[in-house]
Amino acid sequence: MKMKVLVTPKAAVLDPQGAAVRDAMQHLGMPEVRSVRIGKFLEIEIEDNAPDWETRFNGLCRDLLSNPVIEDYQVQGMEKAK
Amino acid sequence: MKMKVLVTPKAAVLDPQGAAVRDAMQHLGMPEVRSVRIGKFLEIEIEDNAPDWETRFNGLCRDLLSNPVIEDYQVQGMEKAK
Repeated sequence: MKMKVLVTPKAAVLDPQGAAVRDAMQHLGMPEVRSVRIGKFLEIEIEDNAPDWETRFNGLCRDLLSNPVIEDYQVQGMEKAK
Repeated sequence: MKMKVLVTPKAAVLDPQGAAVRDAMQHLGMPEVRSVRIGKFLEIEIEDNAPDWETRFNGLCRDLLSNPVIEDYQVQGMEKAK
């Protein structure tokens, strides 16, 4: 099973990396860019044998993959692996 | 208009950051994790006045937001901003 996890900075948190990319895009021919926010994208392949893996998976998303003080995470659709 | 851009390492490219996260997840209670690959997620807000913005946007995705030698990018759905 393939899980996709998006980790994004919370709306209230400053994103200096995003601001730098926004300025770069504005200077490189896209003055219409208003804002850029940058997060992480994780593709995780799991062998889903155990019945309780989803609980453990969500716990790890919160505690290991994101920093819950400044980031939100979102688990996206799952595909059966070949 | 809000664009979402996913930048992921190409399948043939080693992803040491992903390997480290995979090992950490396996040691922290999820031995069923098989592989992890880590990329970037960008949320970009654009004022789409000019007619040719999409061409310029795709050019910037290729040249600024990703490294086409080792990364692929994918532009995901767009939402009209409020």
